[in-house]
Amino acid sequence: MQIGMIDDRIMPLEEVGPEYLDRGMFFGDGVYEVLRSYNGKIFALEEHFARLERSLAAIEITGVNIGEVRSRVLRAFEQARIANAKIYFHITRGSGPRDHLPGKDLQPNFFLTVMELKDNPKLKNEGVSVSTYPDIRWKRCDIKSLNLLANVLAKADSAKKGCWEAIFVNEEGLITEGAGSAFFGIVNGRMRTSPLKENILPSVTRKYVIKAATNIELKVEEESLTTVEARIAAELFLAVTTKDIVPVVKFDGQTIGDGRPGKWTKQLIEEFKKFTGA
Amino acid sequence: MQIGMIDDRIMPLEEVGPEYLDRGMFFGDGVYEVLRSYNGKIFALEEHFARLERSLAAIEITGVNIGEVRSRVLRAFEQARIANAKIYFHITRGSGPRDHLPGKDLQPNFFLTVMELKDNPKLKNEGVSVSTYPDIRWKRCDIKSLNLLANVLAKADSAKKGCWEAIFVNEEGLITEGAGSAFFGIVNGRMRTSPLKENILPSVTRKYVIKAATNIELKVEEESLTTVEARIAAELFLAVTTKDIVPVVKFDGQTIGDGRPGKWTKQLIEEFKKFTGA
Repeated sequence: MQIGMIDDRIMPLEEVGPEYLDRGMFFGDGVYEVLRSYNGKIFALEEHFARLERSLAAIEITGVNIGEVRSRVLRAFEQARIANAKIYFHITRGSGPRDHLPGKDLQPNFFLTVMELKDNPKLKNEGVSVSTYPDIRWKRCDIKSLNLLANVLAKADSAKKGCWEAIFVNEEGLITEGAGSAFFGIVNGRMRTSPLKENILPSVTRKYVIKAATNIELKVEEESLTTVEARIAAELFLAVTTKDIVPVVKFDGQTIGDGRPGKWTKQLIEEFKKFTGA
Repeated sequence: MQIGMIDDRIMPLEEVGPEYLDRGMFFGDGVYEVLRSYNGKIFALEEHFARLERSLAAIEITGVNIGEVRSRVLRAFEQARIANAKIYFHITRGSGPRDHLPGKDLQPNFFLTVMELKDNPKLKNEGVSVSTYPDIRWKRCDIKSLNLLANVLAKADSAKKGCWEAIFVNEEGLITEGAGSAFFGIVNGRMRTSPLKENILPSVTRKYVIKAATNIELKVEEESLTTVEARIAAELFLAVTTKDIVPVVKFDGQTIGDGRPGKWTKQLIEEFKKFTGA
């Protein structure tokens, strides 16, 4: 008899629920998005859905009705009635017996949570410390997939060092991005960040940060920083969906500027509020 | 109210079961093993458990009682009463609200299946075709983790080309391994396979193939093949837990040898039977 076992419990394989046979679990064969709302309004919904469609297409998950996903997200957000909410959802290729090669009749699975976001003003006012970690991720980080173990390991390493975020550095000594954020520096009076290639997630917040920079007449250069450049940068900061701009005041133990959020960073934070209404 | 949503169904977040909040799903934060039995006896149990312990240690999943895992595997296999069984199991770091940084009190989750293996003599008698795929995986393929999306994409690509397996090729044009197998060639009368580094899974079957080669006085060289070398190799084959040795007769459309399993490959298959009792 073919069987399944969940923790200590043995059962016939037919009785194992599809939630245990999800390809998201077996292979990380799925994609996700994280959105947030400011004062009851979801920010950048269209951009997140455009990225979702790109991610799904990149790994050829078909049969997802994007309109239905959107209405699910809106319905859940509506019912939650949380003004500043974090909305997470993932879509996996479906459930079935474990086989790398996807079966033909898979139905994608959808899972979502809406949680309350507790904004922490200290983060923005005082900034955070970050530490570097080798960029050991796969080569398609432009796909927002569920393969995130490298990010977990980087974050855990960073926390051990008393830091808030891990910054990935590739074999050429170039900074790609944070484990859960995009990375920016102010160097020679310009804002620098990695160009969007297959090794970088096309961050929605990044796009708005660039827009904010343009608005305040800060020149933008899409060129990765080296770790050496980061250590001596005038300012550093992160972009994260749930927190928009977070100043970085320490990089691998090196104090950045005077150890407080820099003037451009503060201006960008203010400018960003115009987009969010926060 | 914080909420969860599974497909179309909305519920309070507290009512979402731990199976939906598994870090294995959110991040691929877990490891797995696949074992098989030959005629009622599990093959290489100790080696698989040694690798499991290495995988768990590498990603710092603690609190797993290996003795208990072993007794679960044996109990499940016993109850299944399947002579030629495929045993899959994974252990994840645990369930909790989604946060890259693992919480402190996580309890690892365990999931296992025992399924019947249908041995396909045609595979061994006629051999298979393989196609190459860029090795876009992360840099710690020595860890048998649940981050397998690159393998899924490679397998899907291979199937589209009418092939049985995808062979990963890195940026230097070197073959690392198959999407679900170790890769071997007979070149200049020697058996070649990739050396075990962080980009290679320490395959249990590989170890026994090397032992078999030694037994039949076939010299072994642990040096990766280039795709050029593979195309002109005298013989090629794969090693997979569930099928031990599988001859390769076509590599990216190029017929290998005379298009039938080679003499060394056939000898290795015979020699391997001495280990398994098959």
